[in-house]
Amino acid sequence: MSIQQTEADTLDHARPTAPLLPSYVSGEWWLPESGSPTRDASTGETVAIVGSDGLDLAGAVDYARTVGQHSLGQLTFHQRALVLKALALHLTAAKAELYALSARTGATTRDSMVDIDGGIGVLFSYGSKGRRELPNAQVVVDGPPENLAADGSFGGQHLYTRKPGVAFQVNAFNFPVWGMLEKFAPAFLAGVPSIVKPATPTAFLTEACVRMMVESGLLPAGSLQLVCGSVRGFLDLLDLRDSVGFTGSASTARALREDPAVIAGGVNLTCETDSLNAAILGPDAESGTPEFDAFVASVATEMTSKAGQKCTSIRRVIVPRERIADVVQAVAARIESRLVLGDPRVAGVTMGPLASVEQKAEVRKSVAALIEGGGTVAWRSRAERSVAYADGTVGEAGEAFLAPVLLSFDDSDAAAVHEIEAFGPVASVIGYDSVADAVRLANRGGGSLVATIASADPAVVAELFAGIAPFHGRVLVLDRHNARTSTGHGSPVPHLVHGGPGRAGGGEELGGIRSVLHYMQRTAVQGTPASLTALTGQWRAGAPSVTDGEHPFRKTLARLKIGDAVASGLREVTLDDIAHFASFTGDTFYAHTDEAAAAANPFFPGRVAHGYLLLSFAAGLFVDPEPGPVLANSGLENLRFITPVSPGDSVRVTLTAKQITPRETEEYGEVRWDAVLQNQRDEIVATYDVLTLVAKE
Amino acid sequence: MSIQQTEADTLDHARPTAPLLPSYVSGEWWLPESGSPTRDASTGETVAIVGSDGLDLAGAVDYARTVGQHSLGQLTFHQRALVLKALALHLTAAKAELYALSARTGATTRDSMVDIDGGIGVLFSYGSKGRRELPNAQVVVDGPPENLAADGSFGGQHLYTRKPGVAFQVNAFNFPVWGMLEKFAPAFLAGVPSIVKPATPTAFLTEACVRMMVESGLLPAGSLQLVCGSVRGFLDLLDLRDSVGFTGSASTARALREDPAVIAGGVNLTCETDSLNAAILGPDAESGTPEFDAFVASVATEMTSKAGQKCTSIRRVIVPRERIADVVQAVAARIESRLVLGDPRVAGVTMGPLASVEQKAEVRKSVAALIEGGGTVAWRSRAERSVAYADGTVGEAGEAFLAPVLLSFDDSDAAAVHEIEAFGPVASVIGYDSVADAVRLANRGGGSLVATIASADPAVVAELFAGIAPFHGRVLVLDRHNARTSTGHGSPVPHLVHGGPGRAGGGEELGGIRSVLHYMQRTAVQGTPASLTALTGQWRAGAPSVTDGEHPFRKTLARLKIGDAVASGLREVTLDDIAHFASFTGDTFYAHTDEAAAAANPFFPGRVAHGYLLLSFAAGLFVDPEPGPVLANSGLENLRFITPVSPGDSVRVTLTAKQITPRETEEYGEVRWDAVLQNQRDEIVATYDVLTLVAKE
Repeated sequence: MSIQQTEADTLDHARPTAPLLPSYVSGEWWLPESGSPTRDASTGETVAIVGSDGLDLAGAVDYARTVGQHSLGQLTFHQRALVLKALALHLTAAKAELYALSARTGATTRDSMVDIDGGIGVLFSYGSKGRRELPNAQVVVDGPPENLAADGSFGGQHLYTRKPGVAFQVNAFNFPVWGMLEKFAPAFLAGVPSIVKPATPTAFLTEACVRMMVESGLLPAGSLQLVCGSVRGFLDLLDLRDSVGFTGSASTARALREDPAVIAGGVNLTCETDSLNAAILGPDAESGTPEFDAFVASVATEMTSKAGQKCTSIRRVIVPRERIADVVQAVAARIESRLVLGDPRVAGVTMGPLASVEQKAEVRKSVAALIEGGGTVAWRSRAERSVAYADGTVGEAGEAFLAPVLLSFDDSDAAAVHEIEAFGPVASVIGYDSVADAVRLANRGGGSLVATIASADPAVVAELFAGIAPFHGRVLVLDRHNARTSTGHGSPVPHLVHGGPGRAGGGEELGGIRSVLHYMQRTAVQGTPASLTALTGQWRAGAPSVTDGEHPFRKTLARLKIGDAVASGLREVTLDDIAHFASFTGDTFYAHTDEAAAAANPFFPGRVAHGYLLLSFAAGLFVDPEPGPVLANSGLENLRFITPVSPGDSVRVTLTAKQITPRETEEYGEVRWDAVLQNQRDEIVATYDVLTLVAKE
Repeated sequence: MSIQQTEADTLDHARPTAPLLPSYVSGEWWLPESGSPTRDASTGETVAIVGSDGLDLAGAVDYARTVGQHSLGQLTFHQRALVLKALALHLTAAKAELYALSARTGATTRDSMVDIDGGIGVLFSYGSKGRRELPNAQVVVDGPPENLAADGSFGGQHLYTRKPGVAFQVNAFNFPVWGMLEKFAPAFLAGVPSIVKPATPTAFLTEACVRMMVESGLLPAGSLQLVCGSVRGFLDLLDLRDSVGFTGSASTARALREDPAVIAGGVNLTCETDSLNAAILGPDAESGTPEFDAFVASVATEMTSKAGQKCTSIRRVIVPRERIADVVQAVAARIESRLVLGDPRVAGVTMGPLASVEQKAEVRKSVAALIEGGGTVAWRSRAERSVAYADGTVGEAGEAFLAPVLLSFDDSDAAAVHEIEAFGPVASVIGYDSVADAVRLANRGGGSLVATIASADPAVVAELFAGIAPFHGRVLVLDRHNARTSTGHGSPVPHLVHGGPGRAGGGEELGGIRSVLHYMQRTAVQGTPASLTALTGQWRAGAPSVTDGEHPFRKTLARLKIGDAVASGLREVTLDDIAHFASFTGDTFYAHTDEAAAAANPFFPGRVAHGYLLLSFAAGLFVDPEPGPVLANSGLENLRFITPVSPGDSVRVTLTAKQITPRETEEYGEVRWDAVLQNQRDEIVATYDVLTLVAKE
């Protein structure tokens, strides 16, 4: 049964009323026989029936561990990165369909951008970082080599290898595309297949995105599976090979942490949960300052973007006590001046409904609890009186619509404000008495995903940051210089970690390559330089090298091997050379030009050769001048000058191919050479890595 | 009540019979009123009474979070590292007392070396790495800067700040000194105070070591506390500020993981638990090969060292099926030829008793379970018949003495051999049929601390390593070239991580600076270049720089500020310069000497200047020639050549102080300069960091 048949036979038939939402497991689309309805957030119309009764989840796990691991194991990091880039391009071309579906979740076009283009952006970012920051290989070397024997015959190195299991990803309802892609991309790059379990209310959008990815033909077999509906008991199927990434409530996270698979089975669990994120207004940011305005704009945006249904939204607005009224008034004015509540498909609507009536009930319950806990409604938008509906009517909000509410607390220490997350367009304002007090209040959140500091005073920023950093995964310092260019309090970016300690779940996602390593095991390997070279793919001092007569610069990437080397003869460095180099370059530093002054320097016996002269002579000693596969010297790293060279000393250089990184999309690659400069007494003068671009053929 | 008084008044009085073992909390020595006896492993004599009833543990936690955090917060990483070095020197001078006490735990002098000198070695290592690999500051910058705005006005950076709580360290009985110091050193370097809880049977040795450290006067107030005896309920006192490092049984680890403080309270828990470590003999390593001999020696050592009571000991000896008998015979012969069982204080004794009679009973129970599970006693040492006692007698083993036992299993897949850890001089031999089978068997341990691969065949090593790496924290590749210099299967080294996935606990300790970061929170910070520069202590492109007329090379470390800069004028690079440089240095690469060949190169428009010529000219442009505070150019990093320079182009350089690292013990420090080379069109020609040594005054 082909994928196309499954879809055509069943879905087209069922769609007009309430289509059953398929899952994609073990290389095939699978349809449930029944399930629960999910509804359009604005109209209440049933969008899809979601169910997984009868789905072979154990088979899916096995398929990932076998077929998925095998197919991803055929690819290097660079090759996987290119698949991510191609997927990003494919989704970009097809995204209109995703936007249309996204409106049904209650998302405005702007909200959908964060989810859909944001998610595609994660693919682009990992597609790029994977090629720039990882080797074109399958293991990642971590940190410098360690020597563990006086004679150099035994050493250590850390490296990461991918875990041989599955990345099981449980996502929240609020970002059905981004949430899926931000977990999938790093796992894929690591070489670990994903099983994605979207939240039921918005699973239809995740399904559409996964369908596009599957139909692109770009996905290696088994690298991505989708289970819509319940995955009850899934942890029973997992062990220490596997990783679970969870975004959702603290209570579910707690249940996962208590599961025997995690407690005793070695399953690697990462959670991103509730977070009572704070925005702190510095004492310097008085009304009328650009920081005050930027702060107000940020609070207003975070309250209304995605109708406040973001785990990164600002929940606690922490301001100088005497400025509470100003802030409430300014935030209210800003929101009210821009707010058009309604069905996102209606032109001009700036804020949609919550994802479901159940969510609205939850938020109302939380607001009531906040009030019960000492909060006062400082402002409630009147937008609910004029909700724009798709049928052209305008009227009182029904169903899942909820207008923004700003609470304030006389008692900044009221437990409720620091503990109750109203997951909608709701924030609470509290006052502080000193910067230290602001730190204390921010940290009462018990660990958060993100906090904003709005201040132009470096001393305030320093004190706030030092105080709150250990309790936060991300801190945004907002001021007049970045008010317009900031990526925003609520927007995780793929370059930086997303997650936070304590209540925020204790996990880390994104952060560039950091989250790729999350799906890999770090292992310390010990052995001879030869073994370590072979296992890491990086030549290491003491490992065999080959000087077979042919200059390694004459070898194409196809022929060059790690360990291929050239060792030069000695070249004397004369006083004339030094004097000449000084006058030619203008580098007349006294250590090279004044014997007495040089001798008074604690590091030099007298006049010494310029470091740059030595590097230049070394290049003259190792270079092979005729046109050949080595195209350019692209850089140099880790240079250390160790022994000074006096007039009359000689130097020689040994250059050994250390790492070879072919580029997938170019006719060349990068070769890193280990360079060692020695003097006539075999003392090490300098060590460095030379970076070159070398043709493949 | 002074420390000296407490000790003199109480201990000297109590010592002759059964001294009460003190704890050290809240800056004072504290004595229990009662407790449980701990006994000399060889003689059964009571060494100390250990108890903690009535000890104010909450007060100790509070003392750490306040006094300990405050005093460590006064110090930079380098200053803390110097304290570790001083502690190492102090303990080295006083270690004879520790060796004498260590014998009472059953440890031979060689065993004690691993514990005592091994522990001191950890202090030395962190004392050294802390100064070489960390800044002389209080935060650690992680990874490269990320730019997040087209105009450069907004960016991101990761950095680590210390957690504001306590490092609660629960150690196992087998390494009372090393176990304490390997957890204490990284926490201390991070700036986090430790509360150490040693295992009761050997707490008297930990106490002696802590006493030496306290009496040295080197410890900042509150940075180290000691609780001997039960710490029941300690997790109730901890929250997301705090870390717990646990070494011990999987069952206790499980209880810790299930505790609400961990499940929901955000306590950062690291465990190192049971591990059924494997040693794998490669198919190439036939009897008579150096690898076979090294393998046998390693198994024999690991079985008898510390009487096999090491979490890293070899428990599963995985060999080609046809070589089981050879291996059993060779290991038995090697052990028997060297083994002298007895009281470690008797000259010539090579293996002592287990730590206690209770341990012996445990091991016997495990051996019985292994036999019940399919094992056969392949060899049992006869050493128990002639145990050497301190009173001069030699006779049948009693009390805690246990002779080595080698089991073998016909069924290599018997669950018992992969699940039961007999924590004594016991190992089991199983056979494999292929390298893939050996991988499978090794991984049946469910995650281990360490495995040894003994093979001289690179293909075998590669296959075994790739297969087992994701299940292991450390892998040792043993061959003829490192058989004598290897640090050994069972010895964690401070440079490399110690820990393993799954059954091994899932934690990581040591690994150099990696474990320091464990006590810190990684936070992504976003802001303008100026904010990021201020918070990270590293100048960043786009941040303000100061060119106040005084050349920054004329400023001592005391006066130099991050952002101090020099911007040169333009210097033309002529064709003559290039030709001259080629002939002077010998770097006659065609891109610099042959117009037609250069133009055919994909990266160059025609002949271009040498990269090293540009670096040299740049130095000529930024250097300040007269003697001054800048003492030497010590290195260069991260050089990238970006735009080629053609004859007739001009270059200029901007050099900005990026990071300032005073050395605590020298009259100078390191200054890292951001260097940017631009051409007459302001295109970036090259970027790099220049490293210099600059005098403090």
